[in-house]
Amino acid sequence: MAKKSFESAGASNSLTVRLKIGGGPGAIGKVATLIGTTFKADVGAMDIIGFEDGCTVRDITFSAGTVERGEEIVEALRKMENVEVVNVSDRTFLAHLGGKLVVRPRNPIRNRDDLSMVYTPGVARVCLAIHKDPSKAYSLTMKKSTIAIISDGSRVLGLGNIGAAAAMPVMEGKAVIYYEAAQVQAVPICLDTQDTDEIVRVVKAIAPNYGGIHLEDIASPRCWEVEQRLINELDIPVFHDDQHGTAVVVLAGAINAARVVGKQLRNLKVVASGVGAAGMACVKLLMAAGVRNVIGFNRGGAVHKGRTDLNEQERWLAEHSNRKGFKGTLAEALKGADMFLGLSVPGVIKAEDLKAMNRDPIVFALSNPEPEVLPEDAAPYVAVMATGSSEYPNQVNNSLAFPGIFRGLLNCRARKVTDEMKIEAARAIAALIPRDKLHADCILPGQFNEKVHQAVAEAVCRAAHECGEARRAKRTR
Amino acid sequence: MAKKSFESAGASNSLTVRLKIGGGPGAIGKVATLIGTTFKADVGAMDIIGFEDGCTVRDITFSAGTVERGEEIVEALRKMENVEVVNVSDRTFLAHLGGKLVVRPRNPIRNRDDLSMVYTPGVARVCLAIHKDPSKAYSLTMKKSTIAIISDGSRVLGLGNIGAAAAMPVMEGKAVIYYEAAQVQAVPICLDTQDTDEIVRVVKAIAPNYGGIHLEDIASPRCWEVEQRLINELDIPVFHDDQHGTAVVVLAGAINAARVVGKQLRNLKVVASGVGAAGMACVKLLMAAGVRNVIGFNRGGAVHKGRTDLNEQERWLAEHSNRKGFKGTLAEALKGADMFLGLSVPGVIKAEDLKAMNRDPIVFALSNPEPEVLPEDAAPYVAVMATGSSEYPNQVNNSLAFPGIFRGLLNCRARKVTDEMKIEAARAIAALIPRDKLHADCILPGQFNEKVHQAVAEAVCRAAHECGEARRAKRTR
Repeated sequence: MAKKSFESAGASNSLTVRLKIGGGPGAIGKVATLIGTTFKADVGAMDIIGFEDGCTVRDITFSAGTVERGEEIVEALRKMENVEVVNVSDRTFLAHLGGKLVVRPRNPIRNRDDLSMVYTPGVARVCLAIHKDPSKAYSLTMKKSTIAIISDGSRVLGLGNIGAAAAMPVMEGKAVIYYEAAQVQAVPICLDTQDTDEIVRVVKAIAPNYGGIHLEDIASPRCWEVEQRLINELDIPVFHDDQHGTAVVVLAGAINAARVVGKQLRNLKVVASGVGAAGMACVKLLMAAGVRNVIGFNRGGAVHKGRTDLNEQERWLAEHSNRKGFKGTLAEALKGADMFLGLSVPGVIKAEDLKAMNRDPIVFALSNPEPEVLPEDAAPYVAVMATGSSEYPNQVNNSLAFPGIFRGLLNCRARKVTDEMKIEAARAIAALIPRDKLHADCILPGQFNEKVHQAVAEAVCRAAHECGEARRAKRTR
Repeated sequence: MAKKSFESAGASNSLTVRLKIGGGPGAIGKVATLIGTTFKADVGAMDIIGFEDGCTVRDITFSAGTVERGEEIVEALRKMENVEVVNVSDRTFLAHLGGKLVVRPRNPIRNRDDLSMVYTPGVARVCLAIHKDPSKAYSLTMKKSTIAIISDGSRVLGLGNIGAAAAMPVMEGKAVIYYEAAQVQAVPICLDTQDTDEIVRVVKAIAPNYGGIHLEDIASPRCWEVEQRLINELDIPVFHDDQHGTAVVVLAGAINAARVVGKQLRNLKVVASGVGAAGMACVKLLMAAGVRNVIGFNRGGAVHKGRTDLNEQERWLAEHSNRKGFKGTLAEALKGADMFLGLSVPGVIKAEDLKAMNRDPIVFALSNPEPEVLPEDAAPYVAVMATGSSEYPNQVNNSLAFPGIFRGLLNCRARKVTDEMKIEAARAIAALIPRDKLHADCILPGQFNEKVHQAVAEAVCRAAHECGEARRAKRTR
């Protein structure tokens, strides 16, 4: 069957071309036909900007699907008779001009009185108050509501090791989501180093300014050491989103998927393809939440105690899961399995392999942008299916978790993030789908569900208080 | 004569007390008399908030001058009959609650289209564009208009070594000024280390995100090494404000002071008391601008080639100024001097010492908060006097320089700050006082003069183009 192209549809590949169109009333129809019919792009607005030299000047916006097709369309427009391409603007690039964040005063300085409070001489008393009691930094500085998003640019989206400067737009984007979702102020900091010691040193040096550290897009195994050392050495929460953000949403999805098929987490047999940073975190959190039977797979096959090529994390997994020492293939492991969890690459399983699973199989095929197995291929064999894509039902999307998690951590001035908090966050996300609305195609709330982040924040705060990691007595939003 | 108390007058020591006042119509008069007459505080608004238990509830705002007097007044109010102190709020602390900066999206995310442009999938194309051409970081990320304000908290205002967390309110305040004055976005980063190597490493690691590095409140001699190494190793401007911001404004003031008394910079004999970070930078910039005859003093006396206790900077000074090898006292050096430049401590000279200066002496007594010599004491002997205080005419205030300097550096995407740029910035500040308005009591524009920052920015940009340090061809604001 035909392979789906996994185009980035919609606005992200949207172009606006300014055209001078002559040749009478029929010309605009030819342009629209070329873009919409010949190239099958979605044509949006066709605003008239003015009239020049007997021609109509129009801004025509269309979604080309891919960059290449956009270029082809512009090329074809240039060749049209009576049409002049005045300008081509790419809406995504326009949205990035000058960066996506502003850093500005909370209140304006209107006069010398204002200035004498926010700067000298008044500020000196505030400095001394913090010097005397460092915990006051939480109320009297940005630390109260600000975290740092740290990346070394070594594993950015699916783009790989593109370095600090090129990683910045992703981190700024994450900061935009933080603020829009949960009013968390996030300062993106991309580091011009990929040395573990150096990263740890830099983050420790800048940590006093922030209420938490969000690690992002750092390649494994470095991410594990960086995270663990920072957790040990800092008194603010450190959270690697690629690991734990994913894990929280996977657990939320698993909780509801299990409900849909009437199974208990503790009875699920889970087969996990891909036990890198994200996969390993998912497996660990599922186990912390009660799952007992997991078989993990890396490129070398099933992770079991007999293997000598395992890294530290995989060795842990071999010792704490796969108790029976299964050594077969992924397809063999799926026999009788209740859940397939893919955080690997497309094609590791065939849809037909799913036939051998236990009744009502749950399949989370989260490889991005293309899932391990396509939902349309898997459909005949699965009860509940989730992917990382917004094009299918049940999108596993980190942004359901991280904004609310840090909102909660900041609200209670937490020292660290614990498994309890992550599990409570997952339960809160799952609980946003009322039992009577729960359905195989609706196990997770949508990204624009406004209740998610506050529910997660409250759950994390509650858990922080229960496990004694909250520094602040009262909870407020 | 009576020593001036150097109180921090005005809003920065302003309290608002909420009082429940009983005892009939005369009671409020007694309260006002206590605060205004007995304690000599400035009484401001006395808003009626409501009525409770037969009492009037009022918010009374007053400026106490000092923290201690504020506490005494509150104590006295507590002891008054028919008066209950419900609450005391300190306006300066209120202005700091939650920090003074916001970090938020430039544009909101209204729907999935917006999200698909600022984050995945659209953001990937922007990352790749920067990966391909790193200079694009200037147009497509915050780097375009954002600098970092770096401090190690080792010499904060007059408070000394108070560390990273306690230094934050000063850096946030500086960031507020940056934005209000010149729309420069400044991210305050206080470092939890005072090790030179470590500071250099950290700043290098975070530098790709910023269009410039503002160093602040770092003790000497560390500040010199940190600055010099960063200048050598980074491709963005590095500017230690305590040194060069001060130097630019001192030069601006010197240019206009010389005009007022009809002298030429190159003919001035300057005696500089204090050649620490700020003093040394002032002396160097004055010399770069044409001053030839300078005698510097540190705690060990006149800086001359014969001394063996000089640091590297002082040795430079001994070799490049004080050509005649003057070894006498500060009072002796003032004989025939045209300008005294103090960046040291109160009391190093007596007003009477100024009598021996050349005709029309220029005295910049910039020690803070109390000048080396008080203007009221010096008045009989000087032609032009400047201090660091807003309570006298001719305040030498860094905030005349740094916002416009970095605005200019960002506008032309400069690689570094040169002496030429600093001199042009000083000339631009000086030129803001038209010749016909120039007066002994008006040699510098005020802090709220809106033209200063754009004039400085344009001068810096022009100089950057002239000396080939601008990466951007066109100048725009």
